[in-house]
Amino acid sequence: MQLFVFALIYRKLMTIVFTYKDIIMQRISPLLTDQYQFTMAYGYWQCNKAEQQAVFRLSFRTLPFKNNYAITCGLTDVINFLKNFELNKDELAYLASLKDSNGSLMFSKQFINYLEKLHFTCTIKAIPEGTLVFANEPLLEIEGPLLQCQLLETPLLNLLGFSTLVATKAARICRAAQGDPVVEFGLRRAQGPNGGLTASRAAYIGGCSATSNVLAGKIFDIPIKGTMAHSWVMSFSNELEAFRSWAKVMGNETILLLLDTYGTTQGIKNATFIGKELRERNLKLAGVRLDSGDMLKISKQVRKLLDAAGFQDTKILASGDLDEYLIGKLKDQKAPIDIWGVGTRLATCNDQPSLNVVYKLTAINEAGSWKYKRKISDQPEKATTPGILEVRRFYLNKQMVHDVIYDTQLGISKLPNQESMVFKDLLVPIFHNGTLVYQEPTIHETREFALQETMNFLKNNFKKYPVKLDKKLARLQNELQ
Amino acid sequence: MQLFVFALIYRKLMTIVFTYKDIIMQRISPLLTDQYQFTMAYGYWQCNKAEQQAVFRLSFRTLPFKNNYAITCGLTDVINFLKNFELNKDELAYLASLKDSNGSLMFSKQFINYLEKLHFTCTIKAIPEGTLVFANEPLLEIEGPLLQCQLLETPLLNLLGFSTLVATKAARICRAAQGDPVVEFGLRRAQGPNGGLTASRAAYIGGCSATSNVLAGKIFDIPIKGTMAHSWVMSFSNELEAFRSWAKVMGNETILLLLDTYGTTQGIKNATFIGKELRERNLKLAGVRLDSGDMLKISKQVRKLLDAAGFQDTKILASGDLDEYLIGKLKDQKAPIDIWGVGTRLATCNDQPSLNVVYKLTAINEAGSWKYKRKISDQPEKATTPGILEVRRFYLNKQMVHDVIYDTQLGISKLPNQESMVFKDLLVPIFHNGTLVYQEPTIHETREFALQETMNFLKNNFKKYPVKLDKKLARLQNELQ
Repeated sequence: MQLFVFALIYRKLMTIVFTYKDIIMQRISPLLTDQYQFTMAYGYWQCNKAEQQAVFRLSFRTLPFKNNYAITCGLTDVINFLKNFELNKDELAYLASLKDSNGSLMFSKQFINYLEKLHFTCTIKAIPEGTLVFANEPLLEIEGPLLQCQLLETPLLNLLGFSTLVATKAARICRAAQGDPVVEFGLRRAQGPNGGLTASRAAYIGGCSATSNVLAGKIFDIPIKGTMAHSWVMSFSNELEAFRSWAKVMGNETILLLLDTYGTTQGIKNATFIGKELRERNLKLAGVRLDSGDMLKISKQVRKLLDAAGFQDTKILASGDLDEYLIGKLKDQKAPIDIWGVGTRLATCNDQPSLNVVYKLTAINEAGSWKYKRKISDQPEKATTPGILEVRRFYLNKQMVHDVIYDTQLGISKLPNQESMVFKDLLVPIFHNGTLVYQEPTIHETREFALQETMNFLKNNFKKYPVKLDKKLARLQNELQ
Repeated sequence: MQLFVFALIYRKLMTIVFTYKDIIMQRISPLLTDQYQFTMAYGYWQCNKAEQQAVFRLSFRTLPFKNNYAITCGLTDVINFLKNFELNKDELAYLASLKDSNGSLMFSKQFINYLEKLHFTCTIKAIPEGTLVFANEPLLEIEGPLLQCQLLETPLLNLLGFSTLVATKAARICRAAQGDPVVEFGLRRAQGPNGGLTASRAAYIGGCSATSNVLAGKIFDIPIKGTMAHSWVMSFSNELEAFRSWAKVMGNETILLLLDTYGTTQGIKNATFIGKELRERNLKLAGVRLDSGDMLKISKQVRKLLDAAGFQDTKILASGDLDEYLIGKLKDQKAPIDIWGVGTRLATCNDQPSLNVVYKLTAINEAGSWKYKRKISDQPEKATTPGILEVRRFYLNKQMVHDVIYDTQLGISKLPNQESMVFKDLLVPIFHNGTLVYQEPTIHETREFALQETMNFLKNNFKKYPVKLDKKLARLQNELQ
């Protein structure tokens, strides 16, 4: 009897451990997709097309923010999602319960059984995170059973699109800051908890030096930073007492005071007062933070007062609705600001809060050979390039010269003057028949790689970086409908 | 021995079940906050201010999208978050490991012990989801130990801000659609998985009739809808075959065909052809979907062709970068569109992707009595209203007349002509000393409530709805610094 109970509990334990492991690994449910993906999957299955081999491509149509490059990001989320791609009992039960508008069950029992046995078996190539990419380049090519490729459309778009957008925005902001540290402060006004987490990770890869988001720090191993809020100051009888208490409890840690709770004029007076007290204790006023008002005027005043009081080493941090445009302007006007806290406009990419990512069928296997596919649409810019593509990047003296998009079946045509150039193909194997074959770099390596790529790219001052369609591919494209 | 193993496994099991339960309940980690909240918490704790009673208020500064009202949303996420507010071992270990820039530990062992024992004990009043709200009205008032209120700033802003934004955007879009069904299609380009989920829920509360997001359907019990993608059409040899297969496998379910894969002219020809085949089988072509091109021109052409072929009942669904402006224009121009699929611009609120929510200390208890607090700032619009507030809404013949924001300690002053008015106080008790005292309505009740509120409000054609500051409160505000 005891043994029986034991066995029962053990079995339950294993089920729970398994589910628990999934969740700990930040499992994203395969139900995170559009309803029509399941309806189409059901259709393919009924038409005996579920296992037909197909190729889909993920790319974006135009560069965001009128930037002349983008930085890929989000592949790590895609990998986590696909490593754990399996519908659990609870999810299958939900699908089995769905009814159409006529009140009949949406999916047959047999189809639910099919979904129960479904495993991820596709082959994926993708461009590694941190790489500079351009409009219409394949960020990810997936080859596998039509049904699987179809179900993955929505999550792949979701996971790659937003991260790439934020990494690119962060790169723009860091460029505007001309090497000054930029700290990402976006969580509070981000689009949901995960909107904030994703943004923190992508912003770090795009060049930010830290985030305020503690959970992002824990999950992604990125540096976290912070200052103080107005509420600290307001919770004391007066500002001087609040500053003094802060200086006391922070000990010899970084002491940074927020100046604008009751107006910066009063704030800087109190801050320098405390700075002098710190100096007597052989401690240092590390910085002050400005959070409102005319940043140029105020930063100049504050710098002057700090210098006059002998605080030449005290840094000025600015925050409050900043973005690359405001930072760029302040830098041009020589605002004496040393550190930039950028929140909402970075985390939500306010001037363009989404990347126009698309995921299109580009080839389908019929009786053992690939048939290339092209969507035409009523808008020419929505037409797609057929084929199973690769991007070759050419370098001269370590500088990027141009990219050529070519079809892996047709091969690449020779262009003049390419002999002396070094090249690399950008898409690398990530999954082979469902097995992960990619060794992910650390987030720090990815960030470093993105910084190097960007620096090299910017040296060349491209107005528009040349991305060419290989001529064999172009010919094929014209032939299709 | 057997018993010992049994006991061991049982204990492990309980730990896992406990953690698992947390996660199943969609636990959001208390680390989802800004680093400075923990630094300040540490400071309060060292200054013996951790348990000092304080009041904080969450509000937004201006109405989004230049709309003349907003719809509160996100309280259910706040409740879920606070019900499970506790730092687990893993999270405590992370905090204990953090170091400052000098390499010394950020937090003392004693403080980590304090955090380990921390439970949520605050009292919260909030405006229920689905209520119309206006700038500077308190959406949530929290009273409790200073340290707890401080830690909660970032997650509360995150959870209430984005949902309120999306619900308001959805209401605008539904208003533009003049009663036509609006289906939310935003997941693929939303800001991360959770950005998509949150948007689906808030869009439904704001008035959408369904979402494409399957996981949102499952978690929130909202209707899910979908059509077909271009890939369905492209995976067949030709469009006619693709349509015919769809009609076949969908049986007598809703058959809706996507027209623009190879151009709508061809698409509508093939669709009516299939429609006739369906008619012979006593089935119905329920709808067609337009996804690109000049929607006015195309919808008129398609309607004409459908009518000519005897498909007067076949609906036209339009999608593709739609928002309230485009829908409003198409409605003005009498475009014969029956259903609207709205994705990216709804889920990301592209014209204003964040709500300017703020969370401010407004009172602190000193020796048993409340001391009101006011932030001044260098920008007058960033100054805050002190006090522990409530909003009273006045009605005449069931129509909203005006709101009065008043301080619960000072009470409300009488205004002329209010005798004949009915009123209600908008903030209701949610948590009392950490215990949930609020019975949440279902999402469907909330949606219905929001629709009713909006309909009543719109009858009055307010340019700017009057929100008054009670005169006792206004006087107090002027007295504070």
